[in-house]
Amino acid sequence: MNRRMVFYVTGQIVLLEAILMALPAVVALIYGENCFWSILATIAVAVLLGLGLTLLRRPKNQTIYAKEGFVIVALSWVLLAAVGALPFWFSREIPCYVDGFFEMASGFTTTGASILTDVESMSRGLLFWRSFTHWIGGMGVLVLMMALLPSGSGRSIHMMRAEVPGPIVGKLVPRIRDTAKILYLIYLVMTLIEVACLLLADMPLFDSLIHAFGTAGTGGFGIKATSLGGYNTACQWIITVFMLLFGVNFNLYYLLLIRSFRPVFTSRELWVYVAVAAVATALITGNILSMYDGFGEALRHAAFQVSSILTTTGYATTDFDLWPTFSKTILLLLMFIGGCAGSTAGGLKVSRLLLLGKTVTRDLRRLVHPRSVGTIKLEGKRVEDPVVRSAGAYLVLYFALFAATFLVISLDAFDMETNLSAVAACINNVGPGFALVGPAASYAAFSPLSKLVLSFAMLLGRLELYPLLIAFLPRTWMKD
Amino acid sequence: MNRRMVFYVTGQIVLLEAILMALPAVVALIYGENCFWSILATIAVAVLLGLGLTLLRRPKNQTIYAKEGFVIVALSWVLLAAVGALPFWFSREIPCYVDGFFEMASGFTTTGASILTDVESMSRGLLFWRSFTHWIGGMGVLVLMMALLPSGSGRSIHMMRAEVPGPIVGKLVPRIRDTAKILYLIYLVMTLIEVACLLLADMPLFDSLIHAFGTAGTGGFGIKATSLGGYNTACQWIITVFMLLFGVNFNLYYLLLIRSFRPVFTSRELWVYVAVAAVATALITGNILSMYDGFGEALRHAAFQVSSILTTTGYATTDFDLWPTFSKTILLLLMFIGGCAGSTAGGLKVSRLLLLGKTVTRDLRRLVHPRSVGTIKLEGKRVEDPVVRSAGAYLVLYFALFAATFLVISLDAFDMETNLSAVAACINNVGPGFALVGPAASYAAFSPLSKLVLSFAMLLGRLELYPLLIAFLPRTWMKD
Repeated sequence: MNRRMVFYVTGQIVLLEAILMALPAVVALIYGENCFWSILATIAVAVLLGLGLTLLRRPKNQTIYAKEGFVIVALSWVLLAAVGALPFWFSREIPCYVDGFFEMASGFTTTGASILTDVESMSRGLLFWRSFTHWIGGMGVLVLMMALLPSGSGRSIHMMRAEVPGPIVGKLVPRIRDTAKILYLIYLVMTLIEVACLLLADMPLFDSLIHAFGTAGTGGFGIKATSLGGYNTACQWIITVFMLLFGVNFNLYYLLLIRSFRPVFTSRELWVYVAVAAVATALITGNILSMYDGFGEALRHAAFQVSSILTTTGYATTDFDLWPTFSKTILLLLMFIGGCAGSTAGGLKVSRLLLLGKTVTRDLRRLVHPRSVGTIKLEGKRVEDPVVRSAGAYLVLYFALFAATFLVISLDAFDMETNLSAVAACINNVGPGFALVGPAASYAAFSPLSKLVLSFAMLLGRLELYPLLIAFLPRTWMKD
Repeated sequence: MNRRMVFYVTGQIVLLEAILMALPAVVALIYGENCFWSILATIAVAVLLGLGLTLLRRPKNQTIYAKEGFVIVALSWVLLAAVGALPFWFSREIPCYVDGFFEMASGFTTTGASILTDVESMSRGLLFWRSFTHWIGGMGVLVLMMALLPSGSGRSIHMMRAEVPGPIVGKLVPRIRDTAKILYLIYLVMTLIEVACLLLADMPLFDSLIHAFGTAGTGGFGIKATSLGGYNTACQWIITVFMLLFGVNFNLYYLLLIRSFRPVFTSRELWVYVAVAAVATALITGNILSMYDGFGEALRHAAFQVSSILTTTGYATTDFDLWPTFSKTILLLLMFIGGCAGSTAGGLKVSRLLLLGKTVTRDLRRLVHPRSVGTIKLEGKRVEDPVVRSAGAYLVLYFALFAATFLVISLDAFDMETNLSAVAACINNVGPGFALVGPAASYAAFSPLSKLVLSFAMLLGRLELYPLLIAFLPRTWMKD
């Protein structure tokens, strides 16, 4: 493996993080908060670490193959969380470093699971940084770097493949750098539109920014103990709509921009995604009708929670842990579905499930008619056999890692509903689960071991399993 | 589809059930119980139904293709449970027919989940029938028919494939009828040895027969409220060992009989199976040590429960629902693993998981070295690509059906631990779960809808999904 290049690019990512931290530093200055110094110290650490990694061992060979791509992504994301946790630790706002690491892994992976028991007592600067990591992690930090830096031979499709979710990652335009730029531009403009809408609906500026970051990245960190329960109806509906919008494949927005409407309106993934959201909302509205004041309120809560969980955002307008088991079971199943591929959402992704569903249909047909040949098509295009096979292998690996995490955290002896929903909420990057980790509670009670394992599960889920696993194989690190 | 042949063979199966019911009828006569008349009436119904199906439309063409094989197996098993439930209903020992159907689906599929709240009040004749269905269902009723009837052109490998569990079903000897005979002979002899051992350990004859049926079929129906908790230590250890023995691939016993030892001792599936049992027992023993009187008792309970759950039998010597979450989580995960392919056990089967594990390893290797060619080997033999692919598709279908069942039974508004473990225990043919369906409880509280859905889940699990699904497709029933 080209280790020098791996450290070089990882160093650039850490430097990028230092630059991005300037924003929360400014926020801390504006509000005159002490956390400014903690952020400044972290920036210093990040600059030193980043320079060390980039300058000490300049790579002669800048080639990045698939293996290097995976390792760079894995290493970068672990470092992002490790460095991002420092200001919380320095400022003692989160006294335990493992807690801070959990919070930042949750932030960058856009999970939104929190160990904070009193979020409203935190400083504004650090609350801003915490939510800003959602925005960075949503579209991907390596994609951001590709958009910003001139694309040398060293910046390759392999890093993008490893960071952007979904079974098939395509380029929008021939040059990767341009693809990355287009994606980030769409992302930025949509975020700004959401901020504007929220301001119009009377949400304060700071709150609007925080919730736009959380929505855009499908993250879910809030700044109130009741999440979005305390905001007005208009705000709640705006966020419902934007959560759904950020769960759509961004390629479709690009197609709309270049006025190519047909593939958008015939996108099977989009229609299944919308149908799942609609059916789930209808079922839950019926199920919770008696708990609220009339149909309108029940529909609003159902639609919000369904959008929030399906897109793996994790905001809440009501304590859905108090809902009947049927509604909670629907939410639990939505966690596994997740949003569309190529969006900022987590979960297994609608297109991967469509692909798997087609595999099953083909196999059933083959059992009955052994000689039938089955090619699998998705969105009108033939899907190559290796892609089909790896979607199956992905599911196997996913459930194996799910089971392992579930077993380790069961050592804490909490109930099974807590454990099951905690693992589902972390590996699918949702955030809140049920019972002890419900929307009105936090992950604070877990042991440090469980917190580390759950952080790892969030990273596995966000990066779609392979990068971290490949980075952990000793064979990967051997010289070629 | 050759519908005449499907009805013809299904009719034969119903006739076979009538013959098998003679045994519980004799038991009822010996104990002078009223249920004798209910059993006799059921035999009459079964004979009429069977004759109707076989005589009315004699097939001209006796060919059975894969499709017919699946449909015959599906239809036969549903009818077995439907007819088998009649004596409970006729005698009013189970007043509701849906409950009886659940109990019989649970019996034939060797699940052992029960709706009885007071098993000790049942008549001996029906308790015998209930447990005898485990023994019939364990090795398979179509395999039994193949072993008994002269093999015409109509009896084919396709029915055997559809009924015997595991990703690869092979013949032991060239003729299918001889294979079926050998399998049933090994099964019968091992059952008799277990009965002998239990008698030596001072268990009464009736109890020994019941528990040998339950062990051999890896079923789990008992005759005491405390399952095996009330029997002596020797009986508990004997059953621990025999449960493990019946979870082993029966092909290995045949190989031992023909003195071919090498493939047995190098069987990867066997070693993984033994290792899983050993590690789980060790972990649970450590976890529950403080709950019992010393190491010996903890080890006995851990070993018994691990064997019981891993082989999907479902007997218990203690209320394992009271164990710490870590031990319960281990048991829950064991439910999904199940025994070896070609045994009477349920679950996903060790060899299928081995196969899936190898697929994942190959795919990870391919991600890193895109040009590497990966053939997958199991037990020294190359596994064909379609088998590998269908193992992946199987898992997808398995979890999809799992999720659907989980959602439907959540309408009953029990807690998630109950629902999750109920579905896992039914689809994997285990029997008891946790909380409301724990070993000291029953499935009585579920609604009729949930009971039907769970019965269906048991049949899906026992027949490995495909037969029932194919039988439910309208296309299957069209004329060629």
